Amino acid sequence: MILLLGGSGYVGHAFQQLFARLGLEYRNLARQELDYADPRRLADFLADARPEFVVNAAGYTGKPNVDACEDDKANTLFGNAVLPGNIRAACERAGVPWGHVSSGCIYSGRRADGGGFKEEDFPNFSFRSNRCSFYSGTKALGEEILAGAENLYVWRLRIPFNEIDSPRNYLTKLMRYARLLDAENSISQLDEFVAACFACWQQRVPFGTYNVTNPGFVTTREVAAMIRASGVCKKEFEFFSDETEFMAKAAKTLRSNCVMDSSKLASVGIELTEVHAAVERALREWRSE
Amino acid sequence: MILLLGGSGYVGHAFQQLFARLGLEYRNLARQELDYADPRRLADFLADARPEFVVNAAGYTGKPNVDACEDDKANTLFGNAVLPGNIRAACERAGVPWGHVSSGCIYSGRRADGGGFKEEDFPNFSFRSNRCSFYSGTKALGEEILAGAENLYVWRLRIPFNEIDSPRNYLTKLMRYARLLDAENSISQLDEFVAACFACWQQRVPFGTYNVTNPGFVTTREVAAMIRASGVCKKEFEFFSDETEFMAKAAKTLRSNCVMDSSKLASVGIELTEVHAAVERALREWRSE
Repeated sequence: MILLLGGSGYVGHAFQQLFARLGLEYRNLARQELDYADPRRLADFLADARPEFVVNAAGYTGKPNVDACEDDKANTLFGNAVLPGNIRAACERAGVPWGHVSSGCIYSGRRADGGGFKEEDFPNFSFRSNRCSFYSGTKALGEEILAGAENLYVWRLRIPFNEIDSPRNYLTKLMRYARLLDAENSISQLDEFVAACFACWQQRVPFGTYNVTNPGFVTTREVAAMIRASGVCKKEFEFFSDETEFMAKAAKTLRSNCVMDSSKLASVGIELTEVHAAVERALREWRSE
Repeated sequence: MILLLGGSGYVGHAFQQLFARLGLEYRNLARQELDYADPRRLADFLADARPEFVVNAAGYTGKPNVDACEDDKANTLFGNAVLPGNIRAACERAGVPWGHVSSGCIYSGRRADGGGFKEEDFPNFSFRSNRCSFYSGTKALGEEILAGAENLYVWRLRIPFNEIDSPRNYLTKLMRYARLLDAENSISQLDEFVAACFACWQQRVPFGTYNVTNPGFVTTREVAAMIRASGVCKKEFEFFSDETEFMAKAAKTLRSNCVMDSSKLASVGIELTEVHAAVERALREWRSE
């Protein structure tokens, strides 16, 4: 049995669909059912239920966007840094391997050598770099709290999207915002993301951290052009002149825009679709829930 | 009625003694009694009990010392950063003024101008400065989460001591460690600390952050010499040659050693004993619990 935490969220829901599609026995544990943030209670539950693997898709992302985390710092910190540490304590006590949905939003830009960020690169969009959103700071702190854990996958997601219209879908967001900020980003097709994460366990690839993004990167202007070309949305996209204007007019906190290197995942035999092809496919198959 | 959170700790216990000495009605709320880390439960409790003021002396300091926090990061983060944020949420919902025991350990050294750190100085021993213990990082993050709160005192304690032998007492620690690191520090006589904190409320001084340390600073060698001169402990104190040797041989994480400026507190009429006089008095009156 696979135990899923945070199954009601955007990413957790995709894990549920994956498990159902694979015909796997899984259990989506809700916090109302059992307060899994309490390491002792979760350890007791694990000792009793004996799942073969635990997926933590719980986290605090802020709604409608990351700006909301600035107004709810304690919950953001709890959900993204304390909770993973508590789950680690419980899984270690019970001897259960697990995977944690982290974020590539702990980086900004590209590596100094022009490449995408690799798993071992020091987060440069975190509290320790003193330039970050509160959300990104807590996600980086969460990884710090998980450092050295054995029997753990840390899967870094970035800006999820797929073909289903949703307020959490990157493509929907681009279509709904009045104006956009042009930037380079590696992004993750949601269903490929969860499949790749779980494939790590199915294929017993080495534990550790993996950037789980579609290979390559897109610019916001490229994606806007693909949206228009697809016919999904015909609007004339407008752009902020730069980050300064974006920050002054539309945002409360900085956004992480970054290019990731997903070659470690490819090197263990798990491959995602090239990013432009993945966006085009999502737009071709665009639909409401 | 005054509500005390964290009353069983070293600082909380001193608050209890102060309230008893002042003949004040107070209630020491234990977490086993009510999980005050849950903002909704605490807000309900406050709405019901209607205390005039809340003192948060709860926090996670690590035992026997700050190194222990490195091995228990999730609890350290919860106790020092999430919990204050949750108490803030509850106190704001219930409209109750409160005070939080923070720490001066978010600084290192002295200000660039040679003076002690003032309340508004940016913490230079924190995650954001990327040079800190995990403990100090969480205390600084706690202050960040409390930023902008109204009706709140943030009281910065540093290295508590008094005349009662205790594993938490700075003077006891110095006598028990095999070797010491010489450094300059502002420190807080525990009973004067709690009295000064509560005087902020009694005298209705403006809300905000206050460094609550005994005026001036001491070096570890000075305190060691005072201990020997007092006759409390006759041992020949040994010192590490420098911080590098200390880190290599005796510590897991960096210590905050810093000089604080307590003039803001003095400016509102609350004065603590000059630090050398306070240490000498503690040694003169030295006793077991």
